[in-house]
Amino acid sequence: MSKEITSREKDYSQWYNDLIIKAGLADYSAVRGCMVIKPYGFALWENMRDQLDKRFKETGHQNAYFPLFIPKSFLSKEAAHVEGFAKECAVVTHYRLMNDPNGNGIIVDPDAKLEEELIVRPTSETIIWNTYKTWIHSYRDLPLLINQWANVVRWEMRTRLFLRTTEFLWQEGHTAHATEKEAIAETLQMLNVYAEFAEEWMAMPVIKGVKSINERFAGAEDTYCIEALMQDGKALQAGTSHFLGQNFAKAFDVKFSDKENKLEYVWATSWGVSTRLIGALVMAHSDDDGLVLPPKLAPIQVVIIPIFKGDDQKKLIDEKVKLFMEDFKALGVSVKYDDDDSRRPGWKFAEYEMKGVPVRIAIGARDMENNVVEVARRDTKAKEPVSMDGLANTVFVLLNDIQENIYNKAKFYRDGHITKADTWDDFVKLLDEKTGFISAHWDGTAETEEKIKELTKATIRCIPLNNIKEEGKCILTGKPSGERVLFARAY
Amino acid sequence: MSKEITSREKDYSQWYNDLIIKAGLADYSAVRGCMVIKPYGFALWENMRDQLDKRFKETGHQNAYFPLFIPKSFLSKEAAHVEGFAKECAVVTHYRLMNDPNGNGIIVDPDAKLEEELIVRPTSETIIWNTYKTWIHSYRDLPLLINQWANVVRWEMRTRLFLRTTEFLWQEGHTAHATEKEAIAETLQMLNVYAEFAEEWMAMPVIKGVKSINERFAGAEDTYCIEALMQDGKALQAGTSHFLGQNFAKAFDVKFSDKENKLEYVWATSWGVSTRLIGALVMAHSDDDGLVLPPKLAPIQVVIIPIFKGDDQKKLIDEKVKLFMEDFKALGVSVKYDDDDSRRPGWKFAEYEMKGVPVRIAIGARDMENNVVEVARRDTKAKEPVSMDGLANTVFVLLNDIQENIYNKAKFYRDGHITKADTWDDFVKLLDEKTGFISAHWDGTAETEEKIKELTKATIRCIPLNNIKEEGKCILTGKPSGERVLFARAY
Repeated sequence: MSKEITSREKDYSQWYNDLIIKAGLADYSAVRGCMVIKPYGFALWENMRDQLDKRFKETGHQNAYFPLFIPKSFLSKEAAHVEGFAKECAVVTHYRLMNDPNGNGIIVDPDAKLEEELIVRPTSETIIWNTYKTWIHSYRDLPLLINQWANVVRWEMRTRLFLRTTEFLWQEGHTAHATEKEAIAETLQMLNVYAEFAEEWMAMPVIKGVKSINERFAGAEDTYCIEALMQDGKALQAGTSHFLGQNFAKAFDVKFSDKENKLEYVWATSWGVSTRLIGALVMAHSDDDGLVLPPKLAPIQVVIIPIFKGDDQKKLIDEKVKLFMEDFKALGVSVKYDDDDSRRPGWKFAEYEMKGVPVRIAIGARDMENNVVEVARRDTKAKEPVSMDGLANTVFVLLNDIQENIYNKAKFYRDGHITKADTWDDFVKLLDEKTGFISAHWDGTAETEEKIKELTKATIRCIPLNNIKEEGKCILTGKPSGERVLFARAY
Repeated sequence: MSKEITSREKDYSQWYNDLIIKAGLADYSAVRGCMVIKPYGFALWENMRDQLDKRFKETGHQNAYFPLFIPKSFLSKEAAHVEGFAKECAVVTHYRLMNDPNGNGIIVDPDAKLEEELIVRPTSETIIWNTYKTWIHSYRDLPLLINQWANVVRWEMRTRLFLRTTEFLWQEGHTAHATEKEAIAETLQMLNVYAEFAEEWMAMPVIKGVKSINERFAGAEDTYCIEALMQDGKALQAGTSHFLGQNFAKAFDVKFSDKENKLEYVWATSWGVSTRLIGALVMAHSDDDGLVLPPKLAPIQVVIIPIFKGDDQKKLIDEKVKLFMEDFKALGVSVKYDDDDSRRPGWKFAEYEMKGVPVRIAIGARDMENNVVEVARRDTKAKEPVSMDGLANTVFVLLNDIQENIYNKAKFYRDGHITKADTWDDFVKLLDEKTGFISAHWDGTAETEEKIKELTKATIRCIPLNNIKEEGKCILTGKPSGERVLFARAY
């Protein structure tokens, strides 16, 4: 059939692209590096967004919206930030088009040049801290706990659907605090929010850790992250939470008067996750037949497909399904009854398998007589007859089971792919053959990290939180090291 | 006090700006014409968005997301569209910055010039129809009912918070249909969705109508609109729904094969409302003491303020309020207990009046003895003692009453400001002195409409749906006319 996709074994990268396109998650666009998020992909994003948004609000954050454009000069105000973000970005230089006097369509009006160029935000620390300057005066104005859902643009040279696109959707939290301690606590709180979301909702186990200096966010004192492992043994950074110290407060001169009326610089955090999470979700669980979605995030949790001949059979099935739909609705289960008569059941089976719908219910005329339906689960592909009595409840329990099973499967794979290496040869061999996270000693220098990256394409994904202290020797230089760190090749 | 705002009578325009800033809805930004939507303003937008989104989904639409950027050449593909939208817009010409070799910070890298400039979307018909071309092949792919929530940019010369900003947030629906009839039905359906939302949720009466050719969307066959009246007698276009005919299908060559396998161009609609609605909401209901928000959209519906001396009194009030909060929560009422001890009750009263919180409950030590609280409604400012027994239910009923009262008040004003004019002198005098909508005959020509606009600054807001046919003479030219249209000065 036309929906066939490349197998993971044959070409993992092509498998991923095929899947995104054929499951209807996204499409390429006419604009280089930008994608179209299709309704099915966007419904998935809405579910992720709503759940994260709920958690942000429960932890005291409010949403707001800041401008898309950043004056060019703002990027230069924080020394490290400009190095990290002022390179590959979309630059607005003019504000008007005009008809070409030579009749060649429309051209940029040369008289409409901006005095200062505007950058399409690659991240919003600068425009936000420039605003916070006018909002924060006293300790009463703190903490300021704000999040925004927005589009951002980074002019990536090599792009991949969801994983790395020129424009992407994300949320960025930007908080301001009176003390260092409070800001660090916020940074870690949001890291935990991300980790819980990844594990409980995406069914994707993650390692919480801190980044080495090389991998730190430009302008941060410390960058915390959650790292996941994909089925090809490559790591994927799924979210970051930055302790920014007083760097942006100093760059934008944001001070507050404390209870003793003394002026102090404000402490900051920022944290974000993006539509990249959809790429992670796809790669963590899916198989050669299509998507495998965790029930808690699936846009359609259950699909019901009627199998019948003639209107009389159809009518009987319709009546029965109507009752099931009510039961599912009462349990808060998202269910679709696909009785489109222009498609055959076999086509539908393949289609919903491709789309990763967790549970498929087929109901035929003979089933009606036997008071059963056929229930198929997407994760294991097991099928079995299930009594119509209490069907919604049975499926409800099954959905939880699928959620758990997907998580356990991913965790089993991940746990089996954290391997210690104590010699350089082992390190390289493990990276090439076993793949996954390699736990190894490192001398703590940026030079060594850079050298290892050059030699193997592996980077330090993180230094896990609550890491065990252990004396050892750097895998490359043999210099002394106080703890192992996690290396991997990564998306 | 510092929160005082200019009165409407003194300077309506300044009153509006003061209100937006002091109620904390939005703030100016460092980028010309772009605003920051503050948490309170954004919470209001979220309530509006969620409600509209629910209605879009109930009418069969799905959300998706298309690129921020539009290749310049796309704008030229539809002849009328390019005239309307290719003028004042943000143009991306480069994709990289670099360090100035002369040491003057960062500059645009001259080597990173785009081959074709990208326009930051002012509206997305072109990029979407370019995509639909690859999605639509057969009648089975229709109708395609898609909406997107997005930011758009129009380089406005004169901007005002919410009403006209360079960047704004909106939704844009873009649908594709097999027949003209179906597309027109969709256009009208969405107009009705907007009208119902405006009246039932924003408590803002609107007139549904169709635009004259001059005011039609660039690329549409017909533009339908809802028009509201502000307290200064100026009209405000609150939403539009366009029947696009086959214009974009032809421009982007989007055809489908019908059931007889015949190729036909697709029929289209588009429709949108924006953060401008917040400006309309503010101007429709608010007064000289601050916002007046309809309960159905208010981020905080009820605020409870304790009045006490000492911890013992406070503790008793806290216990009682805790019970009220539970009752309110059970009824789905959004309630805030403001026991911040760094602010006095008088300050809080003024603050929540400014913020337009529909109901304020004050509870003091003597009230506790008498088993009553003081309930104040924001719309009429009436205050009265209310029994603590069944308080949440009493307030719940009151909230509905406030919603209705706000609507009725706005409707009374609006209905009283639709005035017939049959001579030019009357027309001008009514516009200047009474203001509001002027119902007058017009000869149906673009020239006359343009001339009237030049002379009076009034435009044809709409030709109301279900307008009464009535023979008459054009208010300006005396030429024959078959129906009256509504003129007004407008935002």
